Amino acid sequence: MRTVTFGGATSLDNFLARPDGGVDWLRFNDGAAEIMKTFWSSIDTILMGRKTYEVAARANPAASKRKRKTSAAPRQTGPTTYVFSKTLPDQDGLTIVREDVVPFVRRLKEAPGKDICLMGGGELARPLFEAGLIDRVGFNVHPVLLGAGVPAFHPMNHQIDLELVECRPLGDGCVYLDYRVARSGR
Amino acid sequence: MRTVTFGGATSLDNFLARPDGGVDWLRFNDGAAEIMKTFWSSIDTILMGRKTYEVAARANPAASKRKRKTSAAPRQTGPTTYVFSKTLPDQDGLTIVREDVVPFVRRLKEAPGKDICLMGGGELARPLFEAGLIDRVGFNVHPVLLGAGVPAFHPMNHQIDLELVECRPLGDGCVYLDYRVARSGR
Repeated sequence: MRTVTFGGATSLDNFLARPDGGVDWLRFNDGAAEIMKTFWSSIDTILMGRKTYEVAARANPAASKRKRKTSAAPRQTGPTTYVFSKTLPDQDGLTIVREDVVPFVRRLKEAPGKDICLMGGGELARPLFEAGLIDRVGFNVHPVLLGAGVPAFHPMNHQIDLELVECRPLGDGCVYLDYRVARSGR
Repeated sequence: MRTVTFGGATSLDNFLARPDGGVDWLRFNDGAAEIMKTFWSSIDTILMGRKTYEVAARANPAASKRKRKTSAAPRQTGPTTYVFSKTLPDQDGLTIVREDVVPFVRRLKEAPGKDICLMGGGELARPLFEAGLIDRVGFNVHPVLLGAGVPAFHPMNHQIDLELVECRPLGDGCVYLDYRVARSGR
């Protein structure tokens, strides 16, 4: 079954972005670039919520519209991006998913393909954690307390146990924390 | 000037305790014990808020009442504990501070003595971070998402930049993250 990874960059106080979505505080370094390169080659699907999409679209209009290819265009040039939203209008070049995220991701995990990345979106992560559909949690923890922002983790209806896979300084004060979601006892 | 460290154990989603103060999820291992032993020998003062005190008092009634010694009893057997509360009634063996935490801690830092530990208490940490009175941040990050609880970090009125001192796996999936608060540009 395909692995779903919830990951990204956070502040030490667990924000993914400033209150307005700003990520000017992010640091780019060789350590993070190496992890992203390896991770990027392992996935073919990106999941994001509407808010993350809107931030990504502002930052990089072309990359945010890599839609799922039809059979008439079988060559995949980048990962397929699904944006979960009940309100976002249809747009050319964008695959919007209007059904609930849990059954959709459950089917996606059972379908053939490479692994799946859940990008940004603590709000999207919550129901997927609660449904046991997230397998890995990997964050690049930045040396800053933002004080306010978009949280990586939202309140959940039960505890999620993790197993540390790796803890590695990436340079520039950033630390990579990589976990497997523990399945025992659930 | 004495160093104030805000530290303790957190879940990956940044909780210090469950909603009821419960810390049954904490893991004890040799790595954490070694850090605590070194840290304990570097401090002579503990600061905590009322809620942390009440949790500590339930867990360990004797240790939570190591009060500041008077001149009649000059031999110090453990760190001096100050509990900040405007509502907690006076109790024998307990040093309750009723004034605002910021001027009190500013004076304490300028007084002679060993270093100072701010224990638990994200609520107490907030005004001290905002006033620039916290020098170190050190957490033992546990491999669990509690989903709800007492937050380590509360909203703040400005960003706090940190410098990574150390990142070390402690065993049992725990990771020690140690930071200096950056003073440049403030």
